[in-house]
Amino acid sequence: MAQAQIHKFNIRFLPDDITVSVSEGVTILEAALAAGVNINTRCGGVGTCGSCRVWLKEGKVRSKHSARIKEADFKRGLRLACQSHAVSDVTVEIPVVKANSTAASRSLSSGRRETSILAEGWAFKPMAEKIYLEIQPPTLEDNQADIGRLRRSLKQRGIENLAIGHDTLKRLPAVLRESSWNVTATILAEEPSDILVLLESGDTSGNHYGIAVDIGTTAVRAQLLDLTTGTTIAENTAYNRQADYGEDVISRIAYSRRKLGMEKLQQAINETLNYLIDEMVSHSKVDKAGISHMVIAANTVMIQLLLGINPESLRLSPYVPAIDILPQLKARTLGIDLPEHVYAYIVPSVASYVGGDIVSGITGSGIYQRDNISLYIDIGTNGEIVAGNKDWLVTAACSAGPTFEGGGIKFGMLAASGAIEGFELEAAGGTPEIKVIGDTAPAGICGSGIINTVATLLRIGVLGQNGKFIPESGCHRIRQGADGLEYLLADASLSEHGQDIVLTEMDIDNFIRSKAAIFAGCQTLIESVGVNLEDIDDVIIAGTFGSRIDIENSITIGLLPDLARERFYFIGNGSLIGARLTCLSQDLYRDGLKVSEMMTNIELSENNTFTSNYIASLFMPHTDHHKFPSVEIGR
Amino acid sequence: MAQAQIHKFNIRFLPDDITVSVSEGVTILEAALAAGVNINTRCGGVGTCGSCRVWLKEGKVRSKHSARIKEADFKRGLRLACQSHAVSDVTVEIPVVKANSTAASRSLSSGRRETSILAEGWAFKPMAEKIYLEIQPPTLEDNQADIGRLRRSLKQRGIENLAIGHDTLKRLPAVLRESSWNVTATILAEEPSDILVLLESGDTSGNHYGIAVDIGTTAVRAQLLDLTTGTTIAENTAYNRQADYGEDVISRIAYSRRKLGMEKLQQAINETLNYLIDEMVSHSKVDKAGISHMVIAANTVMIQLLLGINPESLRLSPYVPAIDILPQLKARTLGIDLPEHVYAYIVPSVASYVGGDIVSGITGSGIYQRDNISLYIDIGTNGEIVAGNKDWLVTAACSAGPTFEGGGIKFGMLAASGAIEGFELEAAGGTPEIKVIGDTAPAGICGSGIINTVATLLRIGVLGQNGKFIPESGCHRIRQGADGLEYLLADASLSEHGQDIVLTEMDIDNFIRSKAAIFAGCQTLIESVGVNLEDIDDVIIAGTFGSRIDIENSITIGLLPDLARERFYFIGNGSLIGARLTCLSQDLYRDGLKVSEMMTNIELSENNTFTSNYIASLFMPHTDHHKFPSVEIGR
Repeated sequence: MAQAQIHKFNIRFLPDDITVSVSEGVTILEAALAAGVNINTRCGGVGTCGSCRVWLKEGKVRSKHSARIKEADFKRGLRLACQSHAVSDVTVEIPVVKANSTAASRSLSSGRRETSILAEGWAFKPMAEKIYLEIQPPTLEDNQADIGRLRRSLKQRGIENLAIGHDTLKRLPAVLRESSWNVTATILAEEPSDILVLLESGDTSGNHYGIAVDIGTTAVRAQLLDLTTGTTIAENTAYNRQADYGEDVISRIAYSRRKLGMEKLQQAINETLNYLIDEMVSHSKVDKAGISHMVIAANTVMIQLLLGINPESLRLSPYVPAIDILPQLKARTLGIDLPEHVYAYIVPSVASYVGGDIVSGITGSGIYQRDNISLYIDIGTNGEIVAGNKDWLVTAACSAGPTFEGGGIKFGMLAASGAIEGFELEAAGGTPEIKVIGDTAPAGICGSGIINTVATLLRIGVLGQNGKFIPESGCHRIRQGADGLEYLLADASLSEHGQDIVLTEMDIDNFIRSKAAIFAGCQTLIESVGVNLEDIDDVIIAGTFGSRIDIENSITIGLLPDLARERFYFIGNGSLIGARLTCLSQDLYRDGLKVSEMMTNIELSENNTFTSNYIASLFMPHTDHHKFPSVEIGR
Repeated sequence: MAQAQIHKFNIRFLPDDITVSVSEGVTILEAALAAGVNINTRCGGVGTCGSCRVWLKEGKVRSKHSARIKEADFKRGLRLACQSHAVSDVTVEIPVVKANSTAASRSLSSGRRETSILAEGWAFKPMAEKIYLEIQPPTLEDNQADIGRLRRSLKQRGIENLAIGHDTLKRLPAVLRESSWNVTATILAEEPSDILVLLESGDTSGNHYGIAVDIGTTAVRAQLLDLTTGTTIAENTAYNRQADYGEDVISRIAYSRRKLGMEKLQQAINETLNYLIDEMVSHSKVDKAGISHMVIAANTVMIQLLLGINPESLRLSPYVPAIDILPQLKARTLGIDLPEHVYAYIVPSVASYVGGDIVSGITGSGIYQRDNISLYIDIGTNGEIVAGNKDWLVTAACSAGPTFEGGGIKFGMLAASGAIEGFELEAAGGTPEIKVIGDTAPAGICGSGIINTVATLLRIGVLGQNGKFIPESGCHRIRQGADGLEYLLADASLSEHGQDIVLTEMDIDNFIRSKAAIFAGCQTLIESVGVNLEDIDDVIIAGTFGSRIDIENSITIGLLPDLARERFYFIGNGSLIGARLTCLSQDLYRDGLKVSEMMTNIELSENNTFTSNYIASLFMPHTDHHKFPSVEIGR
């Protein structure tokens, strides 16, 4: 598939050291906004306030001259971010400002800060807008009703067909008169019609905040956004308290069927969300009454539990979620302790195991905007995969099992302090150099550690492509253990718990099944639309686990397709990025709706092609070595 | 102004003896529906069920032949009402059926049953519709989300862009599955998008009722409608319990400003409405859960008090209501004890003293549909006047004072038992023949009685055109009383309370001011658009008082304009008729919105032309006798 090639440049922001890839012509300010990097702006990016100064450190930008920058400073590299765009890869430094800089430095969520790829071309126009109106007071000649008069004023600002709730109606005459007809209307973008959610006396347009949330099965991440500037002013993460009632979605569904189960699960997520919000609000000293909107991205089970909708049908064939595109609901009716007027937008879902978190990631990563064919992979117990471009999007979920999070592995653990993650070994006879998260004594091995270990052992001939150890390789760390052959990762004397840490053939077997499910899922999905894996232009890796993996080693073991390495991007928590951008942009909100409708779900669970592809992938990198031309082992 | 003349025929329904005027081509069933006469139909009027049989008693109809009617019966005059239309004035008799006939006979609201004039050409399609859906259960190949699947089914029935509330969403998966995907959706027509208000298991489309209400300042009238057939199955009237806190709108507004005043007024109207609804539901043995919708027409003060909106601005210049077109609100949030899913549609208002009751009357009477210029007058303490046709509508309210309801009249009283209403006298020297409501001893005189008395005395020369008695007329019942000259209506020996019942010059003076306000209001309004009173084609008299007045006498005293008598129509409670028809027809609902936007309010309270016209009307019939060519007195 041919495509027009647009110049793309990497913009690196210091001191946060966040890099984002943008098309030619995108301003530095827009790039920062997209990447979640905090650059102050008061004029909304039209070059008048002079707040968005950055120092050009490397590369070339083209800038409109501004009276806000002295000639001497301009020569030294000071620029207005809103008036400048890159003409090469550039590095810019944002001057340290007193307010919120700590919070801002945490603004890109989890994982390593690699070059990312984000949606472009959207206007900064939050779903919730505050509009200050100076309404003409009534006279005998023009004594239209209050509500009609308000509608008329809003119509002059391009807002029609507005829904208005009973609460706002009741207060209407009092607010209009006590304010001498100068009011601020908060208008929420909604289909099929916008909603007037709040009417306040006077000009409150500067007190305007939003919340973006990703509700993960394990962790919940939230950001507090300033909707007047688009900046992230606080971020917070907490464990999902529902974990007390079950670790994964299946056990949560089961728990929800118990007496008061649903109530307890709802209460747990409400407590989690309320904790996150209150922490952010109090730390940033934001007026909670100024919060205007909330955007939530989550998988379908998390959404249905939040809404109190029986999730049973999600786990039973034919795997039907209750909801896809949802009307916006008042946050309070969801048990979230926000002002009465705040509505929550829940990013739409596509299928039982392809939820709003994935739609949000696709929207945020801009896959649907490009000619390029992208493959988006969120790897976890459930691997969610999306492939497509601006013309089509297909999606599938596959059950990879828990090995990436350390489950089903004898010494498996999450990527936390004590987990072996790095593994280097030059020759079969040598002693490996391991890296432990937190630089502490090893306690086990995490998913990314297993990838690195297996790939290395494979490459140097200690492990066969079938996942069996090769004792003849001359590796004296292979030995017979309780469960068959095993590889000694760390001696008992070095380990945190005083036991030998090993990787067994059974572990590797489980792991191969996981990687095979992901790879076969990608292959089946992409081939279902008549495209080959080689035709993929960009691979975007999302999720906590994904953000830690080594691309080269992942290809070596056959988890990721063998494509040019520069085609791989890490997006981190794509779901949260998408939720934030959706909160900031009505364009992206509408694009998200379109994305959810464009996405065709391919059900893999009872799919024969998937089964064949899966079986063919139970080998490293694959039974068909033509699929992995750059991988040297086994030739 | 020229207009195309369409043939109109009077359809008289027996045994109710209700007559309605309809255009050529309107079916007998449609005429009955418009008039509120109960004719059974199960097929919705397409000629298949055979339920809507009527006997032709007089006149000619054109009928499609139906296999449901035997040849012999056809020859004897039996017809299907839905398959017949009049080609002359006709009288038809509806066979007595066991169910609901008593209730139906009460279906045209108050007042005398005169030939009326109603909106035409609308389809029977209630604002709330119950749609039975057999949804394709999901399969692996088609596992769209429940909500998307429901939307798809509804889309096939032409329903898109549907708003769905949280309650319905929560129950969605359970309802769909317990019903094996056979459900009944209740869809409410609303702008800008319809609302799914209820989803029930199985086919409940036969259990589908609506409520129409007119909230008057004094009385509240309600009807229970069968939304599957359009028939009125019960009707009920009660005093508005808010009367305990003030008789008129001004005293209610004042009371609402007192501590807990608004709460008490809201509670009073809630009690009134709940009493009316419960009585109708229990008498007709209807399943209250089957009530799907409610339509409320009322003046602006009644609406704002119902909604809990401060009504203060209604009575202060520049006379601004809070609301005009309102979103539909849940009946429960208004304190009305109906099922959770029931929304109330409040007919829109135009100005402080031109409320939804008038918009409803204009919609129901179909003025906005015709080439003919109509004048619509609702006479009461506040006279509300509308003039116009399909191209324009103007409206005004004028304060007539309380005399029409007996206020400001020495022996004035409401038109209730004991009120002198009829007054006949051939010559000044004779003894009048009076008719008392309830055929009992007289206690006083009502507004319509004053019109008849004053007109008669004027005609025979006992009363001058200036409202002063003429003792030289030879009328020995004129005498000097405490307040000046007076006319003896009934001797103490005949009266209920043992006092002489008299009509004083001061009474007549007050009364002339009332009639002058109404006439001057009509004149000012109609002339404000460059039309003369003589150009009016139809005069429609609405309201309880209006339905009792004698046209001839009203013209004689100069209350009503001097137009050909056949141009006058009585519509009774136009507000309730409009509310009922709006509940039954989405066409009329949308027409009503259009009507409210078409109506231009002319403020009379500080209008100089009105003041001049008013002064010129303080004479009977008028200072300019050319305005009343057919009135013989005073020439």
